[in-house]
Amino acid sequence: MAKFLLNGQPGEALPLTDRALHYGDGVFETVAVVDGAPLCWEEHLRRLHHGCTRLAIAPPDAADLRAEAERLVPPGGRAVLKIIVSRGSGGRGYQSPESVNPTRILGLYDWPDYPETLYRNGINCTLSRVRLGHVPALAGIKHLNRLEQVLARDDVTARGFREGLVLDLDGNVIEGTMSNLFLISDTSLITPNLDNCGVAGIIRRLILDRVLEWGLRPEVRTLGVDDVRAAEELFLCNSILGVCPISGLDDRAWPVGPYTRAIMDSLAGDGQIAGP
Amino acid sequence: MAKFLLNGQPGEALPLTDRALHYGDGVFETVAVVDGAPLCWEEHLRRLHHGCTRLAIAPPDAADLRAEAERLVPPGGRAVLKIIVSRGSGGRGYQSPESVNPTRILGLYDWPDYPETLYRNGINCTLSRVRLGHVPALAGIKHLNRLEQVLARDDVTARGFREGLVLDLDGNVIEGTMSNLFLISDTSLITPNLDNCGVAGIIRRLILDRVLEWGLRPEVRTLGVDDVRAAEELFLCNSILGVCPISGLDDRAWPVGPYTRAIMDSLAGDGQIAGP
Repeated sequence: MAKFLLNGQPGEALPLTDRALHYGDGVFETVAVVDGAPLCWEEHLRRLHHGCTRLAIAPPDAADLRAEAERLVPPGGRAVLKIIVSRGSGGRGYQSPESVNPTRILGLYDWPDYPETLYRNGINCTLSRVRLGHVPALAGIKHLNRLEQVLARDDVTARGFREGLVLDLDGNVIEGTMSNLFLISDTSLITPNLDNCGVAGIIRRLILDRVLEWGLRPEVRTLGVDDVRAAEELFLCNSILGVCPISGLDDRAWPVGPYTRAIMDSLAGDGQIAGP
Repeated sequence: MAKFLLNGQPGEALPLTDRALHYGDGVFETVAVVDGAPLCWEEHLRRLHHGCTRLAIAPPDAADLRAEAERLVPPGGRAVLKIIVSRGSGGRGYQSPESVNPTRILGLYDWPDYPETLYRNGINCTLSRVRLGHVPALAGIKHLNRLEQVLARDDVTARGFREGLVLDLDGNVIEGTMSNLFLISDTSLITPNLDNCGVAGIIRRLILDRVLEWGLRPEVRTLGVDDVRAAEELFLCNSILGVCPISGLDDRAWPVGPYTRAIMDSLAGDGQIAGP
């Protein structure tokens, strides 16, 4: 069961006037907590700040967020910390109120059950039948308008898959339903371009920043299903899953490759992901 | 100040676990209430049911909704009734819980201040600088993922306009930031195609259904800014505004035309819109 702080106070309920409920008018972050410490805290804060700025929401004070996170997280073990910032309460219509105080919600959740075999053998994926639309005005922001992800995720889990890849309207591969995608082809580490849709993940950014360490060249570009099927190695990443190999995509199978293993080991060794 | 019923009980707050907050995972309706009676009730219920079905949310019981609306609405005067149905509480991730009870929220709001001169002289519009993305999976549903509308509306109101027209990525005209658009050209009544984006409004549907009464032929198609500028008459509609002429679009001006006047009078006379 989740535990929450609402604007710094223990709470269980949000005013029915809040714009997160009415319009998804806000942003969020999902942070891995290991041994009492949130991982990649600065990166999450930076993205939260960037998302708020793009939506013209006053970003929360960094020191408040840190203090509240410290009050909420347990001293040991693993947990998931979710931070939501909504524009706040007000108005029946779409228009933002002239004066509005953003709502800050911190929620602590149990660490999900990702078996160790997932990291050792990889995740078997399918293609989601839900296609992502093109919304450049919102692309890359981790905002609260997430119906497409809900539909895409429900589609793949209903068919018995833990994760699925999601295409956009043009048939380009964008991401997993809850993760970013990388593929390795020759000595390139390639991840889809997110100009039209998709979430620009924290771990995706970390990997792109460190790619030269692994002797790989970074590429961010448009990718088709054929590019994915032709790749030598494939993996997914997000803040909670960390880095996890893909073992299959429908009838195509992959062993866990050496680059993927090296990337997983480096990020876990440096405490940037939780690891298995 | 708004008054709410949450799952049939007077309430002011939503559990922080609700998926409307986290993902905008739900749908809504905005209903005009005049002299104690919600207008176009059956049409709103039908669209709510359709939206729930497309999102695989169990639709609320129609008799419950009716009874709750009757408890909430005042016996006289005008008010706005907003109905929200969320998928319910549960899960930290996108995936819907296996077992989940939808959340039903009814909120009663004050009637907005639309001066009578707006209906007599028309609304002066601009073009919003926010473009609507293409999201066919969600197009036409009145869902809770409404960040684009918030951004578009804030853009036009910040520039001093009461309403603005919104284009999509391809530069086609789709709707107003909070209304549907019609134009009259020769003897055609034309409204934009909403296959890629936009909200299929109740009043838009009513007008399309009754168009022959006014001696006009209905057309639903792709419209560019040039088509709009060349139109003989233009008007906007939504459940609260009713039907309201457009008097100008940036440097182009229109008088209120006879067809627009006839449509306003018919719908108001039949009690389908509140009118001025």
